[in-house]
Amino acid sequence: MSTNKTYHIAVIPGDGIGKEIIPPAQQVMEKVTQGVADFEYENFDLGAERYLRDGVILPDEELERIKKTDAILLGAIGDPRVHAGVLERGLLLKLRFALDQYVNLRPSKLYPGVESPLRNPGDIDFVVVREGTEGLYCGAGGDIRKGTAQEVATEVSINTAYGVERVVRYAFELAMKRKKHVTLVHKKNVLVNAGDMWQRIVDEVGAEYPEVFHDYLHIDAATIFMVTDPSRFDVLLTDNLFGDIITDEAGSVVGGIGYSASGCINASNEYPSMFEPIHGSAPDIAGKGIANPTATILSTAMLLRHLGMDEPAAQIEAVVEADIAQNAQTKRTTEEVGRDILARL
Amino acid sequence: MSTNKTYHIAVIPGDGIGKEIIPPAQQVMEKVTQGVADFEYENFDLGAERYLRDGVILPDEELERIKKTDAILLGAIGDPRVHAGVLERGLLLKLRFALDQYVNLRPSKLYPGVESPLRNPGDIDFVVVREGTEGLYCGAGGDIRKGTAQEVATEVSINTAYGVERVVRYAFELAMKRKKHVTLVHKKNVLVNAGDMWQRIVDEVGAEYPEVFHDYLHIDAATIFMVTDPSRFDVLLTDNLFGDIITDEAGSVVGGIGYSASGCINASNEYPSMFEPIHGSAPDIAGKGIANPTATILSTAMLLRHLGMDEPAAQIEAVVEADIAQNAQTKRTTEEVGRDILARL
Ligand SMILES: CC(C)[C@H](C(=O)O)[C@@H](O)C(=O)O
Ligand SMILES: CC(C)[C@H](C(=O)O)[C@@H](O)C(=O)O
Repeated sequence: MSTNKTYHIAVIPGDGIGKEIIPPAQQVMEKVTQGVADFEYENFDLGAERYLRDGVILPDEELERIKKTDAILLGAIGDPRVHAGVLERGLLLKLRFALDQYVNLRPSKLYPGVESPLRNPGDIDFVVVREGTEGLYCGAGGDIRKGTAQEVATEVSINTAYGVERVVRYAFELAMKRKKHVTLVHKKNVLVNAGDMWQRIVDEVGAEYPEVFHDYLHIDAATIFMVTDPSRFDVLLTDNLFGDIITDEAGSVVGGIGYSASGCINASNEYPSMFEPIHGSAPDIAGKGIANPTATILSTAMLLRHLGMDEPAAQIEAVVEADIAQNAQTKRTTEEVGRDILARL
Repeated sequence: MSTNKTYHIAVIPGDGIGKEIIPPAQQVMEKVTQGVADFEYENFDLGAERYLRDGVILPDEELERIKKTDAILLGAIGDPRVHAGVLERGLLLKLRFALDQYVNLRPSKLYPGVESPLRNPGDIDFVVVREGTEGLYCGAGGDIRKGTAQEVATEVSINTAYGVERVVRYAFELAMKRKKHVTLVHKKNVLVNAGDMWQRIVDEVGAEYPEVFHDYLHIDAATIFMVTDPSRFDVLLTDNLFGDIITDEAGSVVGGIGYSASGCINASNEYPSMFEPIHGSAPDIAGKGIANPTATILSTAMLLRHLGMDEPAAQIEAVVEADIAQNAQTKRTTEEVGRDILARL
């Protein structure tokens, strides 16, 4: 009988290429944990197909089952046949909010062998700590006189000291394990209420971490440095919307969001955390078997680390790095990438 | 006696390098319009110095005088000694809002001779049409329990069909004179109220311009394409905050915001429009006489075009382009750049 610990993993392949990139990722995380852990997967049929078929997005009963798992592996959400926002808000953001995943952790690294679109990328290796449960993502807002010349539409960004402090603290803790440099990114010269609060809390929490240097950039200036000098960053700390924007730009400067993993983390462990590639469902290439599963495989490393399996996580990262170094310029199918990475383990 | 038409120009040098880059720009616009136009400048001492000295930001009486001018030439606003937001909101945004400058026009062009930080920049030549009087820049929002663990801070984005339609129309008119391609940039999968309204109005107005192709990108995807394929863009149409972000990134890919001019335009001509470089007051290099006045000189071209002087405007642009082609790699003082450009006219 196995003495392995068994983990209960919710798997949500979702839409488009989501379905294709999950299986190789599962194979990698199984192989790397042999003799250490077993996984019991529970598959959730959530996303566009289900919605178009049954009109259902995320039934309460399924959310309750997801809540009982140890972690979630998610492929991608989004389909051009569904009106923008329906699945994103009803499923992806619903999960992030319902499971109180307040740290959206997004590392960016320029791997050896990958050609950055930048002429002089330097040594890029930073992490964005994006707040995941507040800001403009709350869904607060509405409209009046819709469809008329008198229409008014609002979006409300709600930010709390409670919500900001916990993610700020996470960023400083993370910086202690890295290069001890936190950069707050906001737009405090315009969004003066939220920006002022973020800055005050960073200053306060920062005072508890005298070894960590912290500075500030407006989001517009941050998008410039992301292109001209991305190696200056260590831990970028920002709100939900700015985090969304800067991580996609970051993905592009490290050679494509095909290498960008992410974790939506409930750092107090009341609910399961969720791991997903940053890229979307890529409907244009879905079904062709050519989607690159690398970002999803790297997401499983984050998942394992979150569950305390640091060594297997590091092993996945090392193997992926070696695979990229050798094959970054080669066109491979989803299956081939999975096979090549498995073969190295 | 001169038969030139006289234009009354409000000049607001502002802070930091603002004071240094304005004089060469004035010299260029005077020389290029000799025999065509005369300028009567009214200087406004507004910005950090005045605020720190007198506690005054923008007195009503001065705003009324500014309203009576034909156009405004602005250097830069912002000073580290003043709390973030005070001057930005009290002066710069106050002007944009009070003068109803609803089109914030920001061209980006990779000039021959300039090295882009991108490996393969392609032929970059697009214009961002940024809405200038709505969205998250309204100053709607507030906070409760400030400074306590129970603080809540909000920011409200207000968007109206009236405000969106006029800027959308401007973008389509502009596209007709260019490559006939409008790309709406928003985040309609999350900001569903405002995003939906923007998309509907673009679809409606777009139907009146069957020759113009229009498409859509989420802001996060737009920041990727700005790095991987910026030559795909012609007219980018977006809201106030996304426009702020994407134009700075755009400035960086065309080799630095030192080349990026902008116009805050009241396209119905009820109030004067304002022309300013996109870059800020650069306190780190202020007073050294080394700020590059190119973006401000290009802003005077936009100013002249706005006042109907297309030919002098085109002349400035041609001369600046020639100057950049020859000198982009040379370190020059503010005065030298001004002199070199003047010498070509
Ligand atoms: C799909 C969308 C709602 C989502 C977001 O905006 O957070 C995505 O862009 C991301 O970054 O995970
Ligand atoms: C200084 C600031 C208020 C301003 C803005 O956000 O609009 C600036 O960044 C700009 O783009 O002109």
